[in-house]
Amino acid sequence: MLQDVAPLTAQHFARALVMPNTRAPITTAGAVVRYRDEILAAAPGLCPLMTIKLMASTTEETVWAARSAGAIAGKLYPQGVTTNSQDGVSDPLSLMHVYAAMERCEMVLCLHGETPGEFCLTREVAFLETLQTIAGAFPNLKIVLEHVTTQVACWAVRDLGPNVAATITVHHLVLTLDDVIGDNLRPHHFCKPVPKTPQDRDALRDWATSGDPKFFLGTDSAPHAVTAKECAEGCAGVFTAPIAMALLAEVFEQENALDRLEAFTSEFGARFYGLEANEGTLDLVREPWTVPPIFGQVIPLWAGRELSWRVL
Amino acid sequence: MLQDVAPLTAQHFARALVMPNTRAPITTAGAVVRYRDEILAAAPGLCPLMTIKLMASTTEETVWAARSAGAIAGKLYPQGVTTNSQDGVSDPLSLMHVYAAMERCEMVLCLHGETPGEFCLTREVAFLETLQTIAGAFPNLKIVLEHVTTQVACWAVRDLGPNVAATITVHHLVLTLDDVIGDNLRPHHFCKPVPKTPQDRDALRDWATSGDPKFFLGTDSAPHAVTAKECAEGCAGVFTAPIAMALLAEVFEQENALDRLEAFTSEFGARFYGLEANEGTLDLVREPWTVPPIFGQVIPLWAGRELSWRVL
Repeated sequence: MLQDVAPLTAQHFARALVMPNTRAPITTAGAVVRYRDEILAAAPGLCPLMTIKLMASTTEETVWAARSAGAIAGKLYPQGVTTNSQDGVSDPLSLMHVYAAMERCEMVLCLHGETPGEFCLTREVAFLETLQTIAGAFPNLKIVLEHVTTQVACWAVRDLGPNVAATITVHHLVLTLDDVIGDNLRPHHFCKPVPKTPQDRDALRDWATSGDPKFFLGTDSAPHAVTAKECAEGCAGVFTAPIAMALLAEVFEQENALDRLEAFTSEFGARFYGLEANEGTLDLVREPWTVPPIFGQVIPLWAGRELSWRVL
Repeated sequence: MLQDVAPLTAQHFARALVMPNTRAPITTAGAVVRYRDEILAAAPGLCPLMTIKLMASTTEETVWAARSAGAIAGKLYPQGVTTNSQDGVSDPLSLMHVYAAMERCEMVLCLHGETPGEFCLTREVAFLETLQTIAGAFPNLKIVLEHVTTQVACWAVRDLGPNVAATITVHHLVLTLDDVIGDNLRPHHFCKPVPKTPQDRDALRDWATSGDPKFFLGTDSAPHAVTAKECAEGCAGVFTAPIAMALLAEVFEQENALDRLEAFTSEFGARFYGLEANEGTLDLVREPWTVPPIFGQVIPLWAGRELSWRVL
């Protein structure tokens, strides 16, 4: 899978924040180094920005060692809320010592912001109190609420300090729950957090195109083989890497905000993480093309549909 | 498919209200007669109660001819809201002449109560105004709001006259949206209307066990081949015929209402339709068994799970 998809990301992205919720999770400095080597071998042109998965067993030493090995963020997965999170954290507030260590060594805390046990559509909103508690306790810890899906979550991020930001995916700018369960059941539109109402999607489009530096792109591009999607228990995740930039250009054009596309995709996130801007540019042209039906074993978002922008 | 599933229904049910939204829809007296013959050939022990699908083209003559051919109900499918409803009715209120003919010839109006174009979770509630308009215009037309999924819809049915009733399926007594999209994506729990919140499911359990004759069983048991469920555009429908009675016994026992099970399954519906009660009884015993993983090409609800009641 890595051989198939890493080069597709490398075609349109200079770097990628690498998620640690692989089948064997990336939880230690050693795993970080090995996984980075595998990615570099699969996609030599890509700069992988590594993360570790925070576990109940994560210690301050784990954090410092991972930081020394080059990990720039740690991601929290509450137990059971998404793909490969069965071993996630049952009580996010039990890791305060870990967050303290991350704050000291300037590691970013990435949050899958959903509370287990809640009704599927209110899990994100239920998590906001946890976000507020962590942000209040660690004013110098950089925190990213990942792949937000609701207007309420965006308001919460806006109201917190400059150390708190949110990412928005490409697919949550175009999908609602209707695209998952409203007609036939569409596993290739199924992701976590699940897309919400049309009003929420429109709010996300407003925030993404607002020019507010607290809101930037995080594709959450998640490749799953067709057989893992079209089955009795389909995995959550939408694969967008090969179409993300083209579809974003389409969305930003629809919102009359093409002049804000670069900031959303390339500036605000880098600045929040304290990274230099990338060298080079991407050539996006207004020229129709049809999204391939499949890449290797993975069906992408908008497979077979026409997009009005393409990457040269 | 008919050969596979009709005998399974016949094992536990003396009669079945046969839905007309087959691939070639049942819209005329001739189709009613042919389809009934096919069902009788596939399941000689079953008494099929026939229906026609109401179309934009349905006339008073169609209604009278279908009634003469033995159809006892006509079902309205608003366009696009469920399986095989692309040819459904775009404006339910454009069929007032049809409803008038049904009222005169004592045919029951069955409603798939969802309004197209609404957000998936509010389609049923959006339809209630249509229900109220039709019920107000035809006080002697018997109307069934089929497979209700929300507390609000149940309240609307309660508040209308004695000519309006609702059916509740077995699967909506046990599923919520969490069972469809809350964990992995589960196509075998996907149906229309989609299951709603835990509060709605609990309300349905209250109404089903309330002893109110306006609420009775309609299984909406819908067989789809595995390949039509586990695919990129999965069909809506849950297959419950072989487990419906056993699972209902379990639900009614959980609700301390076993003494109301027979009325819900066998009396209120027959009385509403003006049918004699069935002869004979079904032997339900409290004895654990495991639901088979598949019947022919169709995966049933609760496949592989243990149930505490079984039909002898």
